Amino acid sequence: MNTIELLKNHRSIRKYQDRPIPQEVMDRIIECGGRASNTGNMQLYSVVVTQEAEKKAELAKLHYGQGATCAAYLTICVDVNRYHHWTRQRGCDEPYDNFLWLMSGTIDASLFAQNLCVAAEAEGLGFCFLGTVLYNAKPIAELLNMPKGVVPVITLSLGYPDQEGSLSERLPIEGIVHQDVYHDYNDQDIDRIHELRETFPFNQEMVKVNGTKNLAEIFTKIRYPKKDNIAISQSLLNFVEQAGMMNQ
Amino acid sequence: MNTIELLKNHRSIRKYQDRPIPQEVMDRIIECGGRASNTGNMQLYSVVVTQEAEKKAELAKLHYGQGATCAAYLTICVDVNRYHHWTRQRGCDEPYDNFLWLMSGTIDASLFAQNLCVAAEAEGLGFCFLGTVLYNAKPIAELLNMPKGVVPVITLSLGYPDQEGSLSERLPIEGIVHQDVYHDYNDQDIDRIHELRETFPFNQEMVKVNGTKNLAEIFTKIRYPKKDNIAISQSLLNFVEQAGMMNQ
Repeated sequence: MNTIELLKNHRSIRKYQDRPIPQEVMDRIIECGGRASNTGNMQLYSVVVTQEAEKKAELAKLHYGQGATCAAYLTICVDVNRYHHWTRQRGCDEPYDNFLWLMSGTIDASLFAQNLCVAAEAEGLGFCFLGTVLYNAKPIAELLNMPKGVVPVITLSLGYPDQEGSLSERLPIEGIVHQDVYHDYNDQDIDRIHELRETFPFNQEMVKVNGTKNLAEIFTKIRYPKKDNIAISQSLLNFVEQAGMMNQ
Repeated sequence: MNTIELLKNHRSIRKYQDRPIPQEVMDRIIECGGRASNTGNMQLYSVVVTQEAEKKAELAKLHYGQGATCAAYLTICVDVNRYHHWTRQRGCDEPYDNFLWLMSGTIDASLFAQNLCVAAEAEGLGFCFLGTVLYNAKPIAELLNMPKGVVPVITLSLGYPDQEGSLSERLPIEGIVHQDVYHDYNDQDIDRIHELRETFPFNQEMVKVNGTKNLAEIFTKIRYPKKDNIAISQSLLNFVEQAGMMNQ
């Protein structure tokens, strides 16, 4: 399969074979991750590869059971701890403990993660991104012994697939692309670009099962309601402050 | 070239041929971008593709001339404006205007961007990430008519390469990987994992030309000094607040 076909055929995998990932495969996909562009080539990220059974079980709890059958959890972090250690040891300032570097570190950690994921699929592995890492950033950081200056932003479950996975629907590209400048949407645009999504069988089934008035309510009322978002935002912000990434 | 080789051979491209990107190629790489995983399949991102000469020249100024010869600037944004338009039109809440969704939107926009970049290289295109988008997020958002709820987080210059580009050095993977839990670095670790970086000819030349005491000082004193980081952090935080992404 060529690279374009590989990208077009991505499926999230949530069930894995009981089969470890050979070290050489793990090394290769991490090396590919590290080839992604990053700000100033500073590589302000780390990846914690958790394969030990007990630690994995504890992580699984903090992800509400997601990915429990994986061969490894990869917890990918913004990491200014290592960089500051280097600059300090060289007699220099430690100036990357602020919002700018939280944001650019998050972007760089994400580019690393996605490159690693593309390599993983090329190697026959499957993965799933677990957004719950942002819900439980603090207990996850504690469980994994992360020092100040380290913020987990992405978790992947990774392993050899024990399911095919299904291709989820996406908005048509006209729904996400703007020519030259941003062109705001009118009501007809919104209806048109969401038509496929709202008629997608899996989504219609979710609406039926949950008894919501429409698909939007699945998200705003059940999956990610305002009350939860506010509580998680606050705890995440508290954690990044404690981690020393919001200094002025 | 297979996918692993493609990823390992990534080079940033800063000089481009005077040759437009065919629409079908642009559509294909954006489609590949959109196949990346994203939180709840909500696709809280947009991409502004700027090809019109005058607008491109104005963008080039806000990026301090970087990528001026590109065929297109791609400004990739966190976008809850479109999502809230959809939920509002469906009689639901608009609950994604907070720090949690700034973070998860930034991650999803980055996964989109990296998938798009891998596809771009597979199509023979070259690109460079311009971190300056975070320095000038507010004037860039204004220039590109972005409404509230839209935050530019990544800019790519994109086009057919007019240079080979060079493979930059990276830390050895032992420098970024932690087994099971995070293992903090001691001074010897820091020396060892930075050895290749500090002896890399390009880096040694930078130190010589700039007359700094070592490579670390290139970053902490010249490229990204504390004073600038604090000023940019503050203006970026002000902007995301104005954009309505820090509500409680």
